[in-house]
Amino acid sequence: METIGFIGTGNLGYPIAENILKAGYKLKVYNRTASKAKPLEALGAELVDSPQAAASKGGIVMSLVADDRAVEAINTDALLAALGEGGIHVSMSTISPDGARKMAEKCKAAGVHYVAAPVFARPNAAANKVGNAVISGDAGAKERIKPLLSAGFAKNIFDLGEDPGHANVLKLIGNFMIAASIELMSEAFTLAEKNGLEVKTVYEMLTSTLFASPIFRNYGGMILERQFAGNPSFDAALGLKDINLVLQTGRNTLTPLPMADLVHSRLTTVLAQGVKDADWLALATGAMKDAGLKI
Amino acid sequence: METIGFIGTGNLGYPIAENILKAGYKLKVYNRTASKAKPLEALGAELVDSPQAAASKGGIVMSLVADDRAVEAINTDALLAALGEGGIHVSMSTISPDGARKMAEKCKAAGVHYVAAPVFARPNAAANKVGNAVISGDAGAKERIKPLLSAGFAKNIFDLGEDPGHANVLKLIGNFMIAASIELMSEAFTLAEKNGLEVKTVYEMLTSTLFASPIFRNYGGMILERQFAGNPSFDAALGLKDINLVLQTGRNTLTPLPMADLVHSRLTTVLAQGVKDADWLALATGAMKDAGLKI
Repeated sequence: METIGFIGTGNLGYPIAENILKAGYKLKVYNRTASKAKPLEALGAELVDSPQAAASKGGIVMSLVADDRAVEAINTDALLAALGEGGIHVSMSTISPDGARKMAEKCKAAGVHYVAAPVFARPNAAANKVGNAVISGDAGAKERIKPLLSAGFAKNIFDLGEDPGHANVLKLIGNFMIAASIELMSEAFTLAEKNGLEVKTVYEMLTSTLFASPIFRNYGGMILERQFAGNPSFDAALGLKDINLVLQTGRNTLTPLPMADLVHSRLTTVLAQGVKDADWLALATGAMKDAGLKI
Repeated sequence: METIGFIGTGNLGYPIAENILKAGYKLKVYNRTASKAKPLEALGAELVDSPQAAASKGGIVMSLVADDRAVEAINTDALLAALGEGGIHVSMSTISPDGARKMAEKCKAAGVHYVAAPVFARPNAAANKVGNAVISGDAGAKERIKPLLSAGFAKNIFDLGEDPGHANVLKLIGNFMIAASIELMSEAFTLAEKNGLEVKTVYEMLTSTLFASPIFRNYGGMILERQFAGNPSFDAALGLKDINLVLQTGRNTLTPLPMADLVHSRLTTVLAQGVKDADWLALATGAMKDAGLKI
């Protein structure tokens, strides 16, 4: 089977790389902190010491890193030369739509296709391949990478068309909606608790009927269990980066987003208060603390 | 079968009364505007000209009216005398928790049980008996009325315990969460549209995966279809009353609710701008108009 380049084995990248290996692909893996990728060697991966060393002529490189700057640091002339004509850079990071378009332009000049394929999944969901992918970019390149996304993490793949920025817009919208839902539930549960209701009953009623969706079930359950810090599967600082990108995307297109402003402020507060190892779910503590509840 | 009193045949009360009649109960119906109840006569209902005339000794009266004041106007000494020892007032209106407790106290003094049973359903869902009931009050009385709620509108019944205010707190929490979800989707869809995405694709992706719940599917679909005014199945003024009750319940228990403040402001704006026959879904127009979108 084809050799795939994989760059970025963080919380989310690691289980995806592992799934792809287990599906039978050969993998060349690069991670800035090499030790994090090390366990993949035992599964047959070859560890390389630069992004471009992960690339094969006309092949596919997948990357999953923190932000626009980190994708820029990967998407170098050296990487694109190593990929060459017909190669594909599958960028799974959550970055700005404009950043994605800029990256795509640079790829194009080298004959490389850039496909935006940001990941809707927490690490556990990715590991179990029940995540969702949204993709945009060149039609032929998208067809070629779909099996990889399915092997790596995606139960469903949604095609947003050719504009490489569009998949990122949808990913940002989704993350905004998740963050706003966390705030929403945290205000709702706080109101219940302050009025003497059994919060678990409130959660069960709402998430088994009107709000019976994965986000409300899963995040609602994590709020009940107070899984705010200690072992973050989605780092609060990365969450704040995403909400900043949402607001920036709104500003760039003259779109006021008062609810996004609110969750931005909540998450900023949590980070400013110095919660250690906060998951972005910790934004739920804002409404609770304001109402005098013990966390 | 037992004769039931039914008070209030508005948008939501009417289909519930009709369902109960069709289930084989005898019904004595009172509505302030008698003409609205008139069609129920053809189905066998007896129309009466006062709330107390709907009551039978030791029987059950169900009421569904606009607000605290309207429930107070029904829950009179005359009604309670007519119900008498062992009678039950099933109050299905969305009112304040404190109002419900006050009403329950008055009932108790007359030997009548007060059961709070606010309705989670738009008229269409009630007609199809796929609504949800949340109930609180005396245990024996709750058992006695459950078949009526099932016959009238409820697919599920959730028991919140003895405090007659608790069912209303949960109902207010639910309505707040619905309103906030409308604002949330409207900001999300607006951001999508302003960035050139196909909004229907965004809706389909989100509501078939992360947000696959009735509220997001149904209200999201209505936002896409621009069903904001003309033929309201839930009047915007009643929606604003509910959000006011949410904020009041928050104030009474020292619970800051910034997201509820936001939706309150949105809905107030819509009403202030004089949208005719607005559904409360019209709060979704706030984010769209602010971003310069045509409604």
